[in-house]
Amino acid sequence: MKTLKEYSIEELEVYCEQIRTKIIETVSHNGGHLSSNIGAVELIVAMHYVFDVKKDPFIFDVSHQAYTHKLITDRWERFDTLRELDGISGYTRPDESPYDYFVAGHSSTSISLAVGAAKAIALKNEQSERLPVALIGDGSLSAGMVYEALNELGFRRYPVVIILNDNKMSIAKPIGAISKFLSQAMAGEFYQKIKKTTEQILQYLPESATYMAKKFEEGFKLITPGILFEELGIDYIGPIDGHDVESLIRAMQSARSLKKPVIIHTQTLKGKGYEMAEGYYEKWHGVGPFDVASGEAIKQGVGKNATTMYSEALIALAKKYENVVGVTAAMPSGTGLSPLIQSYPNRFWDVAIAEQHAVTSMCAMAKEGFKPYISIYSTFLQRAYDQVIHDACIMNLNVVFAIDRAGIVGEDGETHQGAFDIAYLSAIPNMTLMAPCDEQSMHAALEYAYNHQGPIAIRYPRGAFLPSLPSMPLPYEYGKAALLKKGTSRHIILGYGNGVGKALVVAKALEEKGIEVGIVDLRFAKPLDEALLLSLKESYDTWYVISESAKIGGVGSLLSAFKEKYTLYVKIKSFEYEDAFITHGATHLIEERLGITPQQIADKILKDIY
Amino acid sequence: MKTLKEYSIEELEVYCEQIRTKIIETVSHNGGHLSSNIGAVELIVAMHYVFDVKKDPFIFDVSHQAYTHKLITDRWERFDTLRELDGISGYTRPDESPYDYFVAGHSSTSISLAVGAAKAIALKNEQSERLPVALIGDGSLSAGMVYEALNELGFRRYPVVIILNDNKMSIAKPIGAISKFLSQAMAGEFYQKIKKTTEQILQYLPESATYMAKKFEEGFKLITPGILFEELGIDYIGPIDGHDVESLIRAMQSARSLKKPVIIHTQTLKGKGYEMAEGYYEKWHGVGPFDVASGEAIKQGVGKNATTMYSEALIALAKKYENVVGVTAAMPSGTGLSPLIQSYPNRFWDVAIAEQHAVTSMCAMAKEGFKPYISIYSTFLQRAYDQVIHDACIMNLNVVFAIDRAGIVGEDGETHQGAFDIAYLSAIPNMTLMAPCDEQSMHAALEYAYNHQGPIAIRYPRGAFLPSLPSMPLPYEYGKAALLKKGTSRHIILGYGNGVGKALVVAKALEEKGIEVGIVDLRFAKPLDEALLLSLKESYDTWYVISESAKIGGVGSLLSAFKEKYTLYVKIKSFEYEDAFITHGATHLIEERLGITPQQIADKILKDIY
Repeated sequence: MKTLKEYSIEELEVYCEQIRTKIIETVSHNGGHLSSNIGAVELIVAMHYVFDVKKDPFIFDVSHQAYTHKLITDRWERFDTLRELDGISGYTRPDESPYDYFVAGHSSTSISLAVGAAKAIALKNEQSERLPVALIGDGSLSAGMVYEALNELGFRRYPVVIILNDNKMSIAKPIGAISKFLSQAMAGEFYQKIKKTTEQILQYLPESATYMAKKFEEGFKLITPGILFEELGIDYIGPIDGHDVESLIRAMQSARSLKKPVIIHTQTLKGKGYEMAEGYYEKWHGVGPFDVASGEAIKQGVGKNATTMYSEALIALAKKYENVVGVTAAMPSGTGLSPLIQSYPNRFWDVAIAEQHAVTSMCAMAKEGFKPYISIYSTFLQRAYDQVIHDACIMNLNVVFAIDRAGIVGEDGETHQGAFDIAYLSAIPNMTLMAPCDEQSMHAALEYAYNHQGPIAIRYPRGAFLPSLPSMPLPYEYGKAALLKKGTSRHIILGYGNGVGKALVVAKALEEKGIEVGIVDLRFAKPLDEALLLSLKESYDTWYVISESAKIGGVGSLLSAFKEKYTLYVKIKSFEYEDAFITHGATHLIEERLGITPQQIADKILKDIY
Repeated sequence: MKTLKEYSIEELEVYCEQIRTKIIETVSHNGGHLSSNIGAVELIVAMHYVFDVKKDPFIFDVSHQAYTHKLITDRWERFDTLRELDGISGYTRPDESPYDYFVAGHSSTSISLAVGAAKAIALKNEQSERLPVALIGDGSLSAGMVYEALNELGFRRYPVVIILNDNKMSIAKPIGAISKFLSQAMAGEFYQKIKKTTEQILQYLPESATYMAKKFEEGFKLITPGILFEELGIDYIGPIDGHDVESLIRAMQSARSLKKPVIIHTQTLKGKGYEMAEGYYEKWHGVGPFDVASGEAIKQGVGKNATTMYSEALIALAKKYENVVGVTAAMPSGTGLSPLIQSYPNRFWDVAIAEQHAVTSMCAMAKEGFKPYISIYSTFLQRAYDQVIHDACIMNLNVVFAIDRAGIVGEDGETHQGAFDIAYLSAIPNMTLMAPCDEQSMHAALEYAYNHQGPIAIRYPRGAFLPSLPSMPLPYEYGKAALLKKGTSRHIILGYGNGVGKALVVAKALEEKGIEVGIVDLRFAKPLDEALLLSLKESYDTWYVISESAKIGGVGSLLSAFKEKYTLYVKIKSFEYEDAFITHGATHLIEERLGITPQQIADKILKDIY
């Protein structure tokens, strides 16, 4: 049987279509990143044709375009398990295949990895056999990390091939000067012609003028997208049609032969090959199951999600208070900010993948008297940790961090789980941590945060909240928890955020076994409601904690420190995530494996009691 | 009395010299950032002449050039308290003066702040009166955050003036393609002349050729440092002599009038005006007290510092094991990496201010079988938190984080204290945390880390360790603590890192009062030595914890979680930092104020016992 490297161009083209069909079919069942993956099929097939995956580090930036690579490297048969528990991951994973060089799930790390690999290859004297190849989308170019890497790469000039997949899109709309700059690409050809003609004119001039013309050549450069990279010491090839396998192969072959840092600028159509998705922005980037013929989503029976609640609450707030502003880093729809950006383009912004800049620029707005709602996923806020500490918390500014996707996010897996925010934020002085548990309290939380002095973080889960009580004691007060149910036993459950709804389900299950536990909605993880908690010590000797967060540094840990401070003789038992990264798969299946579904928690509590 | 704005050029020049002398004199007594500050005197005087500090946000990047600004804005009299407890801070601080717009202490945030301020000014319709002005050094251009900000600024084109202080230096040597690019500046003038001559030639050509020449003009651009910025949508003025007040004023005045984003490229000499420091790299960036006439440091009687111990231990390791490599982000001397970069230029690198890239590129080297020692300050590692989680810990690679300046760093104050690393690192799965407590254990720690599988962080303080025991039970074993002293009472002190030396002093003080406490060197904060700790529960009912770290999420908190897990009935009391940012000043004075000097701890323990 022929290997890919032996295929003719025609055979490669047929193969690309097979891959594309396979991806569309699989994603239509399992959900996943559609348009980024079908837009990069030819790119990746050409990569595998020109480079050697057994030797060359294949580095996929953020890796939500790597399905083609997975299908080429021995995962065709298992591909229908995509994003399922124990199935194929949506991202590259070395523990899934030796051909996956690195885990990637956050953008813009690829060039740093390529530089590191190049340093290693040089030290091992393997330059004649191995060459790092990084595939990166234009959307990833907005994150600063790329420039940190280019800065070293252009300076030390390691042999590295960077394939820029320019689909003019990022996840949502293209934002920023760099994107604008790249779009001058098509002009490149025009200027090439001008240059040629001018050269012809100049050759008829007297000798001194020819000399000047040469200087001209050296001192002036063509304005192509290349200039940005060339001035940083990276050779430039392009623009190349990213769906033309033959051109791609030729470009990659010449890049490979250069033994220098080189960038191949390819232009692709995001969503290529699935008409409904072609050229669409955010909608077809990450999708749930859908009907291939109609493009309609196959509805999964979940309630209103927390993001929508946040979005609606923020719209109400923005109407009421003129100084409410907000930002997203390339996730306008994912964070619910889209309608706000549309309605108030001077108050709400998408600043592209640029979490550090998002946080710090909003802190300046807070200094100027505005009230920013920084809308971001728990996992992505990790990118701006230093800015949260310095620009929000040392400055003690009135900034709201609206932390979406807190807790297990499901199919996107370990790079996307929102497990650590309580641990990394609670240690920062001046920071307040709170969490709503349903729609009414989401509105109350946003309203509370508006009046709060100092930085505050509000966390909420991906998808729908578990139902809480029909009527919650509201509004929120600073550092105040709420005793929702007294119970009759010596046991009480302290819920935080979506943990409140879970606590109610657990309590129900325990009630069926004749045990009535108390229930507290903690509301604030920092500061804890010490008065209320101290009042519990007489009536309850076992405190169960439910929160969707890592156990180390989590809510249970904050409560243990409180207990230590007051030398309380109660037993605290927390149902948070143990100290391990959490894999991909349906959230309820993962929770089951971790032993933290409401029924499992109820069973553990029962076992504890008897 | 005349205000600065009414001065003649000559008067401004005299004023600059007065400021410079004041800075040299003060820094020679108090220590501080010398060369960056005396290099920026004219720049800041011109800023105050052209812009209005009462209205325009003056944004000082990293703010270790802002002494001149402080002297101009009402702090001349108090300036001799520079960096002292309750004295003038070495950085800008809004709580010190209304003319300090923002706290800054980590680099490369200024353009984001300017963008945020510009957005606010636009929303408040104050564009006719107010304009953000950012002063940024070329060294800060290596950090990615700058490009995230430029990307939005060039796209939305808010009026912002950026003054680039190009001293070709950063903190240490200039590193990277961007720095190289800027150095083409002087060529700019040459090309300007060429361009003019060529234009003259072209005007004698027939009409069609003139048309071509025009196209030429549009399609080609002069290679000046400006092109990088102009292509991103930022207007460029320069290069300007940064010590020529008159030229600076003219350039700033025209920049102010543009109402667009504009960058003024100034060239300065770092250390200007103090001959000994002029043109020197890292040595005169941050200094301790020195003799102005001779330039000699005034020795302060401290022992060998932990950084030197680290450096020597790493040299020994690098000699022994060929696969040991390392990186610093612009702190070669501060982290002790300088001699290694000199001896092994292919194994140890300064990658400029680029913490994210430093971590991720080293993770790729680890993947390739190398053993990287990432040498970084606790506070700066915050910049690479996401990269630590993803590229080191999810990948579970053999990477060592050598965390210098853990604990209170003294005079640099709250932006530089190393308080949070235990909290933010302990929550990450696969991460191991350890801390040596003296020279012998530093060597043992590095040797241990070499053989450790998975990511590991080693923390140590700024300056010298407190003395520990003459002979420590070594080598280290994974997760093993050491009982250094049994004592005779029911009390035991658990020390971590430099907390061990402190515990010994405390124990001595207690011994004088007739109480012999036990002492444990914890060694690993994660994982804790559960077996040893469980064995203590019978003999000791009060456990005192000493660690130089934030209390929330710190060592005491990890121990409380352990206690909860095993339902131990011991009392744990931790002497770590309470939940507040820690100001600047001599470390021992700060510790005294926080109540955590060894004597104060001993007194508290005594009070506790009786």
